[in-house]
Amino acid sequence: MFERLCIIGVGLIGGSIAKAARAEGLCKQVVALGREKNLPNMQRAVELGVIDAFYTDPAQAMAGTDCVIICTPVGSMQAIFEQLKPYWNSQTLYSDAGSTKGSVVEAARAVFGKVPSNFVPAHPIAGAERSGVEAAKVDLYKNRRLILTPLSSTDPRAVDQFNAFWRRIGSSVAIMSVEHHDTVLAATSHLPHILAFALVGMLGRKDEQREIFKYAAGGFRDFSRIASSDPTMWQDICLANKQEIIPLIQQFQAELNQVEHLLQNGDASALFETFSYAKQARQRFLEIFDDPT
Amino acid sequence: MFERLCIIGVGLIGGSIAKAARAEGLCKQVVALGREKNLPNMQRAVELGVIDAFYTDPAQAMAGTDCVIICTPVGSMQAIFEQLKPYWNSQTLYSDAGSTKGSVVEAARAVFGKVPSNFVPAHPIAGAERSGVEAAKVDLYKNRRLILTPLSSTDPRAVDQFNAFWRRIGSSVAIMSVEHHDTVLAATSHLPHILAFALVGMLGRKDEQREIFKYAAGGFRDFSRIASSDPTMWQDICLANKQEIIPLIQQFQAELNQVEHLLQNGDASALFETFSYAKQARQRFLEIFDDPT
Repeated sequence: MFERLCIIGVGLIGGSIAKAARAEGLCKQVVALGREKNLPNMQRAVELGVIDAFYTDPAQAMAGTDCVIICTPVGSMQAIFEQLKPYWNSQTLYSDAGSTKGSVVEAARAVFGKVPSNFVPAHPIAGAERSGVEAAKVDLYKNRRLILTPLSSTDPRAVDQFNAFWRRIGSSVAIMSVEHHDTVLAATSHLPHILAFALVGMLGRKDEQREIFKYAAGGFRDFSRIASSDPTMWQDICLANKQEIIPLIQQFQAELNQVEHLLQNGDASALFETFSYAKQARQRFLEIFDDPT
Repeated sequence: MFERLCIIGVGLIGGSIAKAARAEGLCKQVVALGREKNLPNMQRAVELGVIDAFYTDPAQAMAGTDCVIICTPVGSMQAIFEQLKPYWNSQTLYSDAGSTKGSVVEAARAVFGKVPSNFVPAHPIAGAERSGVEAAKVDLYKNRRLILTPLSSTDPRAVDQFNAFWRRIGSSVAIMSVEHHDTVLAATSHLPHILAFALVGMLGRKDEQREIFKYAAGGFRDFSRIASSDPTMWQDICLANKQEIIPLIQQFQAELNQVEHLLQNGDASALFETFSYAKQARQRFLEIFDDPT
């Protein structure tokens, strides 16, 4: 499909895309572009066979590259677009992997005046608690969902190419608006992460005062897994999508107020209904999750 | 150790105790006591080899029984104590597996006037999202923690017996006060369950309006696992321990208010600190969890 794929930010996300693209024969060569401070990581990526070469100079990285996927935290997108702008090539296809789409599109507008028609905003939905190229997996995106959020101005052929690219990698592709993406992911991903960070932090401080972690069970282990997520990535996501997240935090607070109210009043049957409904909802989620069509 | 163990409530928890006790040769016989409506479940327990016999008549269940472990939801404890009272035997040892201890001790006081010296309140900390005897596992408590909360009036020999019983099953045993147990478990278990139930319910209602569950990833799957917990068990736990839980809900809401505030103000570095601290705390939790000494 591509001669040369350039991954910008070859960590868990970018590294896994590189591995998957290679495994599926979607590109002949994979290179990375990064900053000076990323050199050890990019060197490691070569050692691990994730990429063939790496550059800190965008001119060298872009030479002969026909596909670029930006995999850095969403807070860096504007700086990355600035860096690529002098070399932006109408024959090359560009995409990203950011967990928010509105902020990425805004960053592109800020740098280019309008979003380039050969940039297709994308978000591969694959959770992972580990970071860095060492954690990259060839099957991270297999049987997972990918969302593309092309604008009306995006070149349909570019959309088709990335659609095919991700389907070859094994993801099922959904297309939706930037706004809908950010609304949905705020609920299914951003809010849960905030809740996990908040709870684990609160219990962490209690544990420092007096041991409590030793009395937490496997349930807490699973619940808290997403609190191991990369703080930089999540600081960026939360700030980028705060307009969607803040109302959800408020809605969740209302849910908690309701539960507190039921507890105060000893309302057993209402509590049972609440917990029952959640159990059924979770069952419904599992059926959907285990069948990514 | 025992001639005949009687499990009251042979579901996941009681069934797993039965299986583990048998596997470790801790009793010669295992029987169950239950209600009419539990007959199919108890019949299944016999078919699965979890128990040898079952009764709905406490007199028959208690005959020849030298150890009783009550494994029903904590809201039923008072009724169970009432049922056992006419047959309560000073030569028999009694214990439970309830997720709260204060309410269990209160129930015993209400029925007996004071907590019988041969009743040792216990709580095996083992999470599971499935219910019922079909889900019972012989190793559910292996390498897990068990908390005993004897009172000053509890017979030390009874405490020693259950300490040994649970250690043979593979649990590490901690002894603490009833109050400390309920305080700690409110934080490590009860609050997380409430958060999971509240979030999954909230997202479940959104999903009914417009599909969102299909865009949740593996992180949400883990986070929501404890929302599959048994609603009756959790209704009982939350009501029994509401004095500890309500303040924790309020503390958690203060945490969320703080995050909301940071988002409103775009305070990137404070968000980073919050998420970083949680990540480190989770790491500390994992080290403790994976080393139950």
